[in-house]
Amino acid sequence: MNRICALFQIKYPIVQGGMVWNSGWRLASAVSNAGGLGLIGAGSMYPEVLRTHIARCQKATERPFGVNVPLLYPNIEEIMDIIIEMKVKIVFTSAGNPRLYTQRLKEAGITVVHVVSSVAFALKAEQAGVDAIVAEGFEAGGHNGREETTTLTLIPMVQQAIKCPLIAAGGIATGTGMLATMVLGADGVQLGSRFVASVESSAHQLFKEKVLSVKEGDTTLTLKELAPVRLIKNKFYQDLQELYQQNPTKEELQKLLGRARAKRGMFEGDLVDGELEIGQIAGLISEVKPAAEIVSDLVREYNHAMGHLPEGL
Amino acid sequence: MNRICALFQIKYPIVQGGMVWNSGWRLASAVSNAGGLGLIGAGSMYPEVLRTHIARCQKATERPFGVNVPLLYPNIEEIMDIIIEMKVKIVFTSAGNPRLYTQRLKEAGITVVHVVSSVAFALKAEQAGVDAIVAEGFEAGGHNGREETTTLTLIPMVQQAIKCPLIAAGGIATGTGMLATMVLGADGVQLGSRFVASVESSAHQLFKEKVLSVKEGDTTLTLKELAPVRLIKNKFYQDLQELYQQNPTKEELQKLLGRARAKRGMFEGDLVDGELEIGQIAGLISEVKPAAEIVSDLVREYNHAMGHLPEGL
Repeated sequence: MNRICALFQIKYPIVQGGMVWNSGWRLASAVSNAGGLGLIGAGSMYPEVLRTHIARCQKATERPFGVNVPLLYPNIEEIMDIIIEMKVKIVFTSAGNPRLYTQRLKEAGITVVHVVSSVAFALKAEQAGVDAIVAEGFEAGGHNGREETTTLTLIPMVQQAIKCPLIAAGGIATGTGMLATMVLGADGVQLGSRFVASVESSAHQLFKEKVLSVKEGDTTLTLKELAPVRLIKNKFYQDLQELYQQNPTKEELQKLLGRARAKRGMFEGDLVDGELEIGQIAGLISEVKPAAEIVSDLVREYNHAMGHLPEGL
Repeated sequence: MNRICALFQIKYPIVQGGMVWNSGWRLASAVSNAGGLGLIGAGSMYPEVLRTHIARCQKATERPFGVNVPLLYPNIEEIMDIIIEMKVKIVFTSAGNPRLYTQRLKEAGITVVHVVSSVAFALKAEQAGVDAIVAEGFEAGGHNGREETTTLTLIPMVQQAIKCPLIAAGGIATGTGMLATMVLGADGVQLGSRFVASVESSAHQLFKEKVLSVKEGDTTLTLKELAPVRLIKNKFYQDLQELYQQNPTKEELQKLLGRARAKRGMFEGDLVDGELEIGQIAGLISEVKPAAEIVSDLVREYNHAMGHLPEGL
């Protein structure tokens, strides 16, 4: 049996990334009900908001779902308490040290997965005792690694280095891309951008439509001095570029970024001055679909690709 | 039959990239003799040097081989005359407008392939009448596109857009990576970094050894203001970084780059002040091998991966 399906007790090794401002209980439960693993993105939720989303998700699906927690979150202790108290069974951690919470979560009977962008961090996560690792390449939307290692390069390197199950992320939006990364050695996949453009995503409708319009070269990795993030090159990005012309300090960059840019862009639909995080693979996404249809598309495309493999040599 | 094998009349759809300072007649003929397609890299050769390499390659193999020509080469007319006069059968063009020479080469009975890094340029190349396209992702070594599109994202987008045969490049050094990109829709692959670390490569031994030591994050794409190039972060790169702190003009960057940096690094083995072009996938390369062994490894790994596919869903 597939190691990711066995670990999470799900039908397909397809994880919906727990993205800020996109991944509430509606999206997570829809993906889980379709046989994948839905994740609530805690990174954009106050603790009490997260509590509500977990409760609603528990009502909306009997299948396994999880919560993604960026470890740099300010109210992290409160978030972890809520997750344990509400008996969430699966937690994906990201953006921080996996040693901080892995043992505590595992003692509470929780399956723990950590998101990395390098072999070095994959090894640290495995040593910290995680049950699986997500390795995410340079092409992924949102926050990303400093090494800029692409998924095609990263997956075989991480697979060589670790023993625990491996989930590939970054640059995957179809069943064909899913099969390609699993050929490289991944046990399953995590998709972000594809699920942003879903009916159940909590992203603003204008942002979803913007994602459909993304072509090659329309996204870039920027703000490397703070935390590298892949976003659409809109006016906010152009403002950043102007500031970069002046050799800004970190503080000046932080000041321009300000607070709630991501909310403004992705949740409130300000396509001009908001931060619009999305992956390069948005170029392949042309339709907003229900999450269940996205999952069934992935399965159909994957099986089609399996039936139309290139010849042996 | 595989479209790339049919087009070039070769046994395996494996192309050795025609790289500056690495790809003379020894490497090209060794790859062709092993059943792949070897390419002489004209970009680092004076016209008379190229003439010698073509003549020696013709003596060293009866199998098809080709020449890679960067279209921005200063003596381009002379180079094209030599190629036609010496009855070279296959030409890969790169770094320039495919409309300039494709028809002339095809009228001389030459199979023409153009290297691109975007869908837009793939369409232009197809309209110019090329016989096949190489689509090369952000992770590739050496000169690269401005869009920074990774191979995993680029291949399915280009495959969707064009009808002619497609060769994937960037991030491939194993038969597993080869199969993954062919699952994505490529008909064959082009490998650069893997063949730099070959016995027959004309790279300096010190550079070959340096390639074996490359880990994740050791290469980066820089000089985007001139022509983006992926190289190893050595002292020359650090000097560039210091200059970047001062918001340099293009002329100042060009002045620091100077002439013959790439020769100095890759051919003369100056690992400190030379330009060392290599792809991210060098992190997976641990041994200098004869080119024939690299080809047979690729075939064995590819067939192994075909025999160990992930399960259907």
